Amino acid sequence: MRILFIGDVVGAPGREMIDEYVPKLKKKYSPTLTIINGENAAAGRGITEKIYRRFLEVGAQAVTLGNHAWDNKDLFSFIDDAKYLVRPGNFPEGAPGKGMIFVNCNGTEVAIINLQGRTFLPPLECPFKQADAYIEEARKRTNVIFIDFHAEATSEKQALGWYVDGRVTAVVGTHTHVPTADKRILPNGTAYITDVGMTGPYDGILGMSRDAVLKKFLTGLPVRFEVTEGRRQLSAVYIDVDPATGKARKVEQILINDDQSIFD
Amino acid sequence: MRILFIGDVVGAPGREMIDEYVPKLKKKYSPTLTIINGENAAAGRGITEKIYRRFLEVGAQAVTLGNHAWDNKDLFSFIDDAKYLVRPGNFPEGAPGKGMIFVNCNGTEVAIINLQGRTFLPPLECPFKQADAYIEEARKRTNVIFIDFHAEATSEKQALGWYVDGRVTAVVGTHTHVPTADKRILPNGTAYITDVGMTGPYDGILGMSRDAVLKKFLTGLPVRFEVTEGRRQLSAVYIDVDPATGKARKVEQILINDDQSIFD
Amino acid sequence: MRILFIGDVVGAPGREMIDEYVPKLKKKYSPTLTIINGENAAAGRGITEKIYRRFLEVGAQAVTLGNHAWDNKDLFSFIDDAKYLVRPGNFPEGAPGKGMIFVNCNGTEVAIINLQGRTFLPPLECPFKQADAYIEEARKRTNVIFIDFHAEATSEKQALGWYVDGRVTAVVGTHTHVPTADKRILPNGTAYITDVGMTGPYDGILGMSRDAVLKKFLTGLPVRFEVTEGRRQLSAVYIDVDPATGKARKVEQILINDDQSIFD
Amino acid sequence: MRILFIGDVVGAPGREMIDEYVPKLKKKYSPTLTIINGENAAAGRGITEKIYRRFLEVGAQAVTLGNHAWDNKDLFSFIDDAKYLVRPGNFPEGAPGKGMIFVNCNGTEVAIINLQGRTFLPPLECPFKQADAYIEEARKRTNVIFIDFHAEATSEKQALGWYVDGRVTAVVGTHTHVPTADKRILPNGTAYITDVGMTGPYDGILGMSRDAVLKKFLTGLPVRFEVTEGRRQLSAVYIDVDPATGKARKVEQILINDDQSIFD
Ligand SMILES: [Fe+2]
Ligand SMILES: [Fe+2]
Ligand SMILES: [Fe+2]
Ligand SMILES: [Fe+2]
Ligand SMILES: [Fe+2]
Ligand SMILES: [Fe+2]
Ligand SMILES: [Fe+2]
Ligand SMILES: [Fe+2]
Repeated sequence: MRILFIGDVVGAPGREMIDEYVPKLKKKYSPTLTIINGENAAAGRGITEKIYRRFLEVGAQAVTLGNHAWDNKDLFSFIDDAKYLVRPGNFPEGAPGKGMIFVNCNGTEVAIINLQGRTFLPPLECPFKQADAYIEEARKRTNVIFIDFHAEATSEKQALGWYVDGRVTAVVGTHTHVPTADKRILPNGTAYITDVGMTGPYDGILGMSRDAVLKKFLTGLPVRFEVTEGRRQLSAVYIDVDPATGKARKVEQILINDDQSIFD
Repeated sequence: MRILFIGDVVGAPGREMIDEYVPKLKKKYSPTLTIINGENAAAGRGITEKIYRRFLEVGAQAVTLGNHAWDNKDLFSFIDDAKYLVRPGNFPEGAPGKGMIFVNCNGTEVAIINLQGRTFLPPLECPFKQADAYIEEARKRTNVIFIDFHAEATSEKQALGWYVDGRVTAVVGTHTHVPTADKRILPNGTAYITDVGMTGPYDGILGMSRDAVLKKFLTGLPVRFEVTEGRRQLSAVYIDVDPATGKARKVEQILINDDQSIFD
Repeated sequence: MRILFIGDVVGAPGREMIDEYVPKLKKKYSPTLTIINGENAAAGRGITEKIYRRFLEVGAQAVTLGNHAWDNKDLFSFIDDAKYLVRPGNFPEGAPGKGMIFVNCNGTEVAIINLQGRTFLPPLECPFKQADAYIEEARKRTNVIFIDFHAEATSEKQALGWYVDGRVTAVVGTHTHVPTADKRILPNGTAYITDVGMTGPYDGILGMSRDAVLKKFLTGLPVRFEVTEGRRQLSAVYIDVDPATGKARKVEQILINDDQSIFD
Repeated sequence: MRILFIGDVVGAPGREMIDEYVPKLKKKYSPTLTIINGENAAAGRGITEKIYRRFLEVGAQAVTLGNHAWDNKDLFSFIDDAKYLVRPGNFPEGAPGKGMIFVNCNGTEVAIINLQGRTFLPPLECPFKQADAYIEEARKRTNVIFIDFHAEATSEKQALGWYVDGRVTAVVGTHTHVPTADKRILPNGTAYITDVGMTGPYDGILGMSRDAVLKKFLTGLPVRFEVTEGRRQLSAVYIDVDPATGKARKVEQILINDDQSIFD
């Protein structure tokens, strides 16, 4: 089976890229499963029900989140009914929503897990132990287990990749909004990339207005960050999976932007 | 002119990669200027005079550093005489060493600047203002200005890139030890990459022993990090520069590891 | 001369304490100079012009701020005309407002400085060097120099106290909202206390609703912090100063709350 | 019953204060139970078996720790046999040592708990939930439950105090090395203080050499922190407890230093 994962969609420019390129990517890669990280989809912060539904319509089977999950209060109104929405699973017990979901793809069940790092981010339950618990539960149903690890520190992301190597199909990092050039299949069969990168403005700073972010760094004064306009990018990975063993056979990086593109 | 920059060299495995591949890279790319980030060259922490000299012998014209610059106390004994060693320039005035050096490459003078980020890192002087000051000083002598921005946060790195776009030849990020897939030439001619990545062990966590780092994440107890053994990698960028204007004409990523290599 | 300094006023309960107790404190201590930290005076975040003017009416000659200075956007409309308002002076040059002001108290000029720490707080210019610069400037006009050091870490606060000992009249800490029991006069004559504590709700968590803060710690989910109701406290220090030398002669702690009060 | 708790003992000067004043304090207060926080007892970092035994000899019945617990490697050789040593209980399961111990004081059993905060400190398990678990376990044996909450942030400390109010006898904070002036008995009977303060040098910065700490703040360069010499202090609290209900009847602050002392 083939999994397509699209990194943090930022605001309207990100959603427009989804609308435009998911059909093209589906045509090119024929993914069995398409997953979108939507933590910044609503004006850069959080997600709304409308956006979530749009992602499913355009062809995603699951939407993952991250530290910005809760920024748009609309989430609280629909998260408990959103079967295909996954939020970081290492929030303390009782948090709304789910940290792992199962999706059936042409007869193969896939577990999709979202975890959040703790280095340079607020305290949460241990993502490593939460991974253990989810993997144990998932293994009863399937060998195909996909983890979106939403984290800042490269050390924590690499550590989780190695920690679960051979027990899951893939660990893909999100959150830094910059794609890394380290995709690989770890020795025991887990596809790994430190960060998939973002989908949205290409000429912003992590997708936000350069002027605002620079003002923040230069003055220390509060600024209002807004999703910027202009050229756009999409960042994704494509993973070919042996559905029987859950091992990754291939991982490929997809970068669509004015400097490098798979489409002409 | 052509600049070759090699990312954070970690311990003996990193130094071995330098010994083995710098001659090959020189043959392949004929760089006018070779720069090595050596902040982790001595057992993962800092640099010694011997290593610094070795880097020059093997063909580097300059060695940059980062937050680990001061970890090996040997540095304090030779830094003031090390003409080709650059440490983060936004340490408070009076710090030993220099934050900007000038190197003459076949008649073209090149300013080489090292700066350190402040997001998720200890307080220092403002790297943006320090960049302004250095650029103003450098511009009196040359248009070719190279910045190694040693920083954690992708936002701060992108922000600096955009901030100096058109005023310097290149901003290359270091510190996270993971190469990013976002090399580009910004609209006004500055080559940019968020992180060049590391040179040293390929199967460690940022180059360090997986067992130790995982123990740290899992237990919270103190552990002794050591550079790990086994397969190795080299991460670099190559920048083609118009020596008259100092604008970058091309930026190319060089990754040498078992999954992707420019050498067979 | 006698200086009365009142710690972080939080919301309406804090302002009510000011209204009620500043007259009483003036009667009891006859301060030559009354200073109020108002960084949380407007609903817990920032200050408005109306509140600033009220503080002056009720008898303050100066109002200091802190990291929450900019939270209420009203500030930007009046800060440049507010002669007796001091914001952290180690914001980068160009920030609105002033980091040091001079107040004339019965013929004695007093310099009032506000600085913000950098440990566990966002990057700013070095507060130690900014202190040096301000002290040098102030010394040309007066020996009586008062510093409100708004900082989180006890190490940074003690460090600044010792650093300027003998060069200023007082270093009083603010920001943690908890009064410390370490008031003293340092060997060279500077009155010092790590934190003056807050003025406002007595049964909140730093003045805010216990339910909200506990929910944050227990769930990690976003919560809306609001100033809480109920019993109230005022925290202050009183410093007796030799106006000729600027040395502190005595420092006294003033805590008004249901467990300990100077008024019956 | 009466509990005497002495805050972070720092190095030889701290241990000398213990030797000199614990006998005097015992004479003055006749505590049923004496507890010492020893996380900095060995040269400022960690504790050795010899020091632990000395604390018991001089009259402590329990020794608590904190984030520096593990700094002196000697700990690992004796912690599992040290019946009266308590380390932060919210380290992940499997850490050496215990996070709660029971001590029998003249027939009354007392549970002594050590927890570590997570704000501005490395990730650990949730101290609030760990408190719940320990309290539930302890309640089966006794109503007298004492918590040393070793944490940086005043918000987290106040939050824990309110969270367990009425369920434990006392929450005393440690770690900042500065005594706070906010001791009180919360409405449901729990004695609370944000920080007890330290025991050791009086003229250092948190007990360490002023020169070294100032150099760190001024230069950002690495320095070697050492426990400083000179005048000394002891910081403690004394709590009067109803042994039947476990409620605190009185909490008193004990500060012994050249500026304020209970002994003449
Ligand atoms: Fe994101
Ligand atoms: Fe994120
Ligand atoms: Fe490095
Ligand atoms: Fe680094
Ligand atoms: Fe405040
Ligand atoms: Fe504050
Ligand atoms: Fe301590
Ligand atoms: Fe501590």
